[in-house]
Amino acid sequence: MDIKKKGELVADWDALKRIFVKPESEASKSALVKYMNKILFGLNDFLSTHVGVTEKASLKDMSGRFRNSIIRRTPEKKLIDVITDLIEDIAPHAVNVASPYFIGHMTSAIPFFMVHLKTIVAALNQNVVKLETSKIVSLLEKRLLSKIHRLLFENTDEFYTEHIQNPHSTLGCFIEDGTLANITALWVARNRALAPRGNFQGVEKDGIAAAHKEYGLDRCVILVSRLGHFSLRKASGLLGIGNKNIIPMDVDSENRLDLKKLKQTIKELNRPGSKTKILAIIGIAGATETGSIDPLVEINKICREHKIHFHADAAWGGPTIMSEKYRHLLKGIESADSITVDGHKQFYMSMTCGMVYFKDPTIMDSVTYHAKYVNRPGSVDLGIKSISGSREATSLILDSALKIMGTQGYALLIDHGIELATMFAKEIKQRENFQLVTRPVLNIITYRFCPPQVQQKLLTADSAEKKQINGKLNEINRNLQISQREAGKSFVSRTTLFMENDYNKGIVVLRSVLMNPMTTLDILIEILDEQEQIWKNEMSNCFSDISKKGCLYHRPSDQMHG
Amino acid sequence: MDIKKKGELVADWDALKRIFVKPESEASKSALVKYMNKILFGLNDFLSTHVGVTEKASLKDMSGRFRNSIIRRTPEKKLIDVITDLIEDIAPHAVNVASPYFIGHMTSAIPFFMVHLKTIVAALNQNVVKLETSKIVSLLEKRLLSKIHRLLFENTDEFYTEHIQNPHSTLGCFIEDGTLANITALWVARNRALAPRGNFQGVEKDGIAAAHKEYGLDRCVILVSRLGHFSLRKASGLLGIGNKNIIPMDVDSENRLDLKKLKQTIKELNRPGSKTKILAIIGIAGATETGSIDPLVEINKICREHKIHFHADAAWGGPTIMSEKYRHLLKGIESADSITVDGHKQFYMSMTCGMVYFKDPTIMDSVTYHAKYVNRPGSVDLGIKSISGSREATSLILDSALKIMGTQGYALLIDHGIELATMFAKEIKQRENFQLVTRPVLNIITYRFCPPQVQQKLLTADSAEKKQINGKLNEINRNLQISQREAGKSFVSRTTLFMENDYNKGIVVLRSVLMNPMTTLDILIEILDEQEQIWKNEMSNCFSDISKKGCLYHRPSDQMHG
Repeated sequence: MDIKKKGELVADWDALKRIFVKPESEASKSALVKYMNKILFGLNDFLSTHVGVTEKASLKDMSGRFRNSIIRRTPEKKLIDVITDLIEDIAPHAVNVASPYFIGHMTSAIPFFMVHLKTIVAALNQNVVKLETSKIVSLLEKRLLSKIHRLLFENTDEFYTEHIQNPHSTLGCFIEDGTLANITALWVARNRALAPRGNFQGVEKDGIAAAHKEYGLDRCVILVSRLGHFSLRKASGLLGIGNKNIIPMDVDSENRLDLKKLKQTIKELNRPGSKTKILAIIGIAGATETGSIDPLVEINKICREHKIHFHADAAWGGPTIMSEKYRHLLKGIESADSITVDGHKQFYMSMTCGMVYFKDPTIMDSVTYHAKYVNRPGSVDLGIKSISGSREATSLILDSALKIMGTQGYALLIDHGIELATMFAKEIKQRENFQLVTRPVLNIITYRFCPPQVQQKLLTADSAEKKQINGKLNEINRNLQISQREAGKSFVSRTTLFMENDYNKGIVVLRSVLMNPMTTLDILIEILDEQEQIWKNEMSNCFSDISKKGCLYHRPSDQMHG
Repeated sequence: MDIKKKGELVADWDALKRIFVKPESEASKSALVKYMNKILFGLNDFLSTHVGVTEKASLKDMSGRFRNSIIRRTPEKKLIDVITDLIEDIAPHAVNVASPYFIGHMTSAIPFFMVHLKTIVAALNQNVVKLETSKIVSLLEKRLLSKIHRLLFENTDEFYTEHIQNPHSTLGCFIEDGTLANITALWVARNRALAPRGNFQGVEKDGIAAAHKEYGLDRCVILVSRLGHFSLRKASGLLGIGNKNIIPMDVDSENRLDLKKLKQTIKELNRPGSKTKILAIIGIAGATETGSIDPLVEINKICREHKIHFHADAAWGGPTIMSEKYRHLLKGIESADSITVDGHKQFYMSMTCGMVYFKDPTIMDSVTYHAKYVNRPGSVDLGIKSISGSREATSLILDSALKIMGTQGYALLIDHGIELATMFAKEIKQRENFQLVTRPVLNIITYRFCPPQVQQKLLTADSAEKKQINGKLNEINRNLQISQREAGKSFVSRTTLFMENDYNKGIVVLRSVLMNPMTTLDILIEILDEQEQIWKNEMSNCFSDISKKGCLYHRPSDQMHG
């Protein structure tokens, strides 16, 4: 690649071959090391000097730079120049998710060793879809699946001895992310509910239309609180069930699935003559927006009574089980039929790693796929029961991380997040300009900016006034979040919550996810101070006349620096 | 993590925090570098000293080591010990997919810079599901999607100017692998065929049962040659269409979809009064087992005539388009409605990277999903139209690799594979002990061991004799492949092909995938020599009495060293 002709780089066979083999010369070796050091510390420098989340360059300006759709025939740049560009030109305009001031999303700082482990996985380049391209790594993955299964389901020694390396048992699978984990769980739940009988070979083989006919149905539904992750809606569409058949359920005052309404809904759906089948009920263990946890013990009881698949979406909350102090919050999860949990969230892995676990080691049999050249019947190929095919060995990273940290190390992180959230909530309550909207259960809280005189007004306002005030508050909080994001020092996210007996267009709230161990109460205080300052500088005349519209300059709602 | 109490490692808050930040001291920095060097060259040493694919340890023995399902509370090992274990204990029992003697699967050596690029992606830890956790990287990904789209579809400058950074346009998406890319394509095809009309809101919202009712259907089908990848069957199950409704079509003598039979099938499915709808026809550009390419131009013509979605599965063959010499083989692919292509295959990326591209930038609108906290309407968040949620920025790797290699560099690799396959086929034909089963179109060939006297016999044998001989040949080739694999020096894979007018139980063949630039004809000759040697040593008495059964010792068919 490094041959130049007439000032242009030219791809050349001998140079090309060299990049595929172990560098023999000391010069090549030291070049490789130099590049890697540049990556380790060049990027590291970016991560520490840019405390802010984003840079000033506008999205429009930036996108102007990315408008050339032609791939050049000849090599454009040497490796070292590509690395330098990534470090000096791309990284500064990426998002510093590792900043302790970045408390808006479920992406955060990761231990530096995760990068080393990812590098090992890349260098080994195993494909875990089959034993012939992974061998020992498949065995290690099977063991890890047992380990996490045991953490979640706490089954017996005998159970794990039987299943840990059994080619016919599937305790779970690794998959790109939580969305695909939820899809996998509901795929299996659908197939379980519409199983083969008589001449009907099951929904997987015969399709949904045939399944409806066989079971005398005109509708299959899935029940989940309205705080369910949007991947569940996606799953219903993908699986042929239809988005309208994932029924969003009310929540109680603590944002947990409302059991009374759940029971009532089941009763209605199961009324005599009904042609509706409930495929699954989902219990959320750490709602994306609020961190709340559904009453898992009770949901399980209801599922058992009605013979319905119980899926726990613990993409966020799952690792809480490693905390001796807070694992009680997940009580009931061990009864679920399937559990989603993400590695790149509270296992602090680098992007991306999703997982799904099943109580019953045979339940995935309904999604068995063989081929003639791989995944043959009887083999231990992990690709036989999986929504994906080729996969990198992210299990190697999680297995190693658990060895390095122990559950004790993870527990320290989990406990820190939950306790920091409690302190943050206390601080918000003490400030007259803020309203705590959802109290922290795990390490997520939502709140909104609401000046004291407006809080006062809301207490006595009639319905029309409330509507007007909340509308304005929504506008303010939306702008506040964007202003703070644009200032580039810190980042909270925002969402819209639909609270019972409240503004029916939803309440715009600021959302904090506290998972970075470097985030302290002092930092959170700074973030609140900055929000108050933004209000003071940009919006404080907004409530001078409550009926006055448009006190804020217009901002495009969802484009960063648009 | 490094505090010891009573000889045991203990997780400790201060030590824990340190691993999340940039190491300040020279000692910590040099430790990080030392670890990374160990990874770069330790693993590199393994890759070069173990030329063989596998080690001698039996799967049973190995799996005995992976039977403990308990995660320890306290840290088990220090980082350096974990890295050492991975290098010294795991790597030697992994599969050396980078060996030039490993010619069995679509996983091979990768340029060493891919590891560096992967490390950058891990260190940046961007989540491409949304702009707020990726910013410039999302723009870069959108540009790359245009670049590859242009490579495949060759649309106009105006087209790319309009769509390259348009938040409403989706030219394709990155996804974990080819399986999920195929699933995405068929998901979109299903939704297109069962689109909203009148009160019907479309299959995604209303479900398949409602769609059947609206369109007066009792069956939806997908047509693909019987050489279609097994992910297509999986897609039909997942999407609620049913495995039995993916109709495997015959192939011609060159393993291409038989057009006459395709037309005939369409005619039958569309006969007056039929309640069957054809959702998609798939053209394969590089069949997994044989590398063959379906007649894409003609398939497109048929699809247009009948208004059927045309999906091209170019997971393997797609990058051939970069070869000026061989791109003509893909003629017609530019007319497809959707194309699957894998990054971890012939773009030589590390595991894993799948992609799917769509001709029409609005066709993915039917799989649009929003949430209140991300992926809001109007935003440029890439997660709005995607089967997955959180995703690492593998696009950064491919974009960089294209800059370093140019299409010219990739073309050298592609050309080498195809030309080596041609030479290999010639060598096989010259050897009396082998039969070439499928001639190479791209860089994949299949052949079988078949001694000359047996070849002779097959020419005059009647049907019953043919059956007996082929059965025995299958047994021999199966054992040959396993024996060679177990010897650990080289690796070809095997599959079963169903040839027209031939043994109806299928022909077991040896399969070679020639993508490693370090693989030479000399190496291939060695591999054939070894196969002949295995025959001589282990099986040469097999045909002494053709009717004699069980000349071979029994081998468990699909467990490596089982």
